[in-house]
Amino acid sequence: MLAIGIDLGGTTIKGALVHREKGLLDQLAIDTEAERGLEHTLSRISEAIKMTAGRAQGAEITGVGIGAPGVISFDRKSVSNPPNLMGWTKVHLAREITERTGYSAILENDANLMALGSARYGIGKNYHSFIMLTLGTGVGGGIIFNNELFRGTTGGAGELGHVIIDYNGPESNSVTRGGIEAYLGQRFLSHHAALILKENPENDLYKQFDGNFSTLEPLHLSQAAKKGNELARSILAWAGKKLGYAIVNYIHILDIRTIILSGGVARAGSLLIEPAKKAALTRLMPPFHPGFDIIYEDLGNEAAMLGAAALAFDGFVN
Amino acid sequence: MLAIGIDLGGTTIKGALVHREKGLLDQLAIDTEAERGLEHTLSRISEAIKMTAGRAQGAEITGVGIGAPGVISFDRKSVSNPPNLMGWTKVHLAREITERTGYSAILENDANLMALGSARYGIGKNYHSFIMLTLGTGVGGGIIFNNELFRGTTGGAGELGHVIIDYNGPESNSVTRGGIEAYLGQRFLSHHAALILKENPENDLYKQFDGNFSTLEPLHLSQAAKKGNELARSILAWAGKKLGYAIVNYIHILDIRTIILSGGVARAGSLLIEPAKKAALTRLMPPFHPGFDIIYEDLGNEAAMLGAAALAFDGFVN
Repeated sequence: MLAIGIDLGGTTIKGALVHREKGLLDQLAIDTEAERGLEHTLSRISEAIKMTAGRAQGAEITGVGIGAPGVISFDRKSVSNPPNLMGWTKVHLAREITERTGYSAILENDANLMALGSARYGIGKNYHSFIMLTLGTGVGGGIIFNNELFRGTTGGAGELGHVIIDYNGPESNSVTRGGIEAYLGQRFLSHHAALILKENPENDLYKQFDGNFSTLEPLHLSQAAKKGNELARSILAWAGKKLGYAIVNYIHILDIRTIILSGGVARAGSLLIEPAKKAALTRLMPPFHPGFDIIYEDLGNEAAMLGAAALAFDGFVN
Repeated sequence: MLAIGIDLGGTTIKGALVHREKGLLDQLAIDTEAERGLEHTLSRISEAIKMTAGRAQGAEITGVGIGAPGVISFDRKSVSNPPNLMGWTKVHLAREITERTGYSAILENDANLMALGSARYGIGKNYHSFIMLTLGTGVGGGIIFNNELFRGTTGGAGELGHVIIDYNGPESNSVTRGGIEAYLGQRFLSHHAALILKENPENDLYKQFDGNFSTLEPLHLSQAAKKGNELARSILAWAGKKLGYAIVNYIHILDIRTIILSGGVARAGSLLIEPAKKAALTRLMPPFHPGFDIIYEDLGNEAAMLGAAALAFDGFVN
């Protein structure tokens, strides 16, 4: 059985042709052209779907799952106020897509789809329950409980980047202060690193950027740390410690002890994970220690498209 | 249909005779005599059960639910390391009770039973999902999702008093720092209030205690605040604000927006709830605002016994 997974972004629309058992068969990407407004973007999404379907060589396609920004309705048919998409307020995207393509469609937010993609096609297959954190521009979360997404009462569960660990802490991209997005979000971590590097002109990383850190990314910290740069290592450890405290909160509330990391910042690997584990274990109540682990998902952005297709395989409601 | 709900404490064993629809029919309490060790305490529990059953006037009793301290096994049959019970390590309490009384038995922790009791017999009946916080000596939590307890992967979910809001914050009765138990637990709030009152000898509450606050309880703060004592009011508002931040964390993770408070400290009512609401709304992401509310459960400790009986009504597994 085949399904199409779409990753709708403000810049790019990605489409994946997915086989239920075999996973990703093919993928493509086209420009969103979001600046041309709602109608045009709907046409672009439909075009991406048709192009992806064209790669199926006539095999039947069960439907389309779409990962979208913004707030997704509980019935997974509408999206409200997606950032970066011009002219979208509340859009019944499932219906619009069905009208344009003939396929049934179902929506979910990206972070939840990353979790579902990992659960069905990635390292998450090994766990019936886990917490997925996507450490990218923002910090997104998805909760898999007994092999299904835990959605809460309206579908909004899992805003894990906005869980407070310091109520006096810094702001991030929301009204919440002191959530891990404010420490580990790509822009925030880069900014923090730049501040520290500016005070350390003798550091190799300072020299590499010639004191101008506008293009510094967490990846540079990982690269430097792996080459033995102690300052870069300590900055990642600082971020990992914050992550560890947030993980304590997830586990004390959910009693789900497997944490899976994805996203660009997570590529720091053990430089981030080991300090996170250590911090979490100091504050986690002892009955929650057995089975606690933090692991890395290397599916990358494909996880969201795979998760979108998985949603389509799980079925549609009318 | 009748069931027995038992609240097993280090000092007192309470027993309630509960009718499935009508709720509490009768209750009694006997001393635990925990200092006499495991065997004796098991006899005392059995005696409380038999005494409670004796009030049923021959009507059939479906079984016994027991609220116990310590870590409850996922199958709800064993309890490990209950504090305040001498000589208990891991005890298969369900079997021990069945052997002594003939009744099927099932266990759960107190905080979860408070939530279940409210869901079946209290204000929680009005909500299919809610988060229950019991603000007592410690701060306990229970999560009701779609009318059932959310238990996580091992039955440990809902340790809501140990969710960090300030990773540099004070310690409470666990390894976690800066959880709300460290601010709102009875002893911690009283201690905080005493520190502030000592610096304000002109305050009426200082005079009431003659500067010696060893017997000060949160109840005194509420009473004084209701009489117009601004300092007492500000201390409760301080605690409410902390509570509000923790609630942001619960809601961002679970997307369950009804918060029900019980326990002695919660008797402060709006003096605590209004500052909590205000703080939560400043940090809660806007999509989570609709439906958000904090309400008070006045069932008191009976909620735990009613919840224990509810567990017995829900059935036993072998």
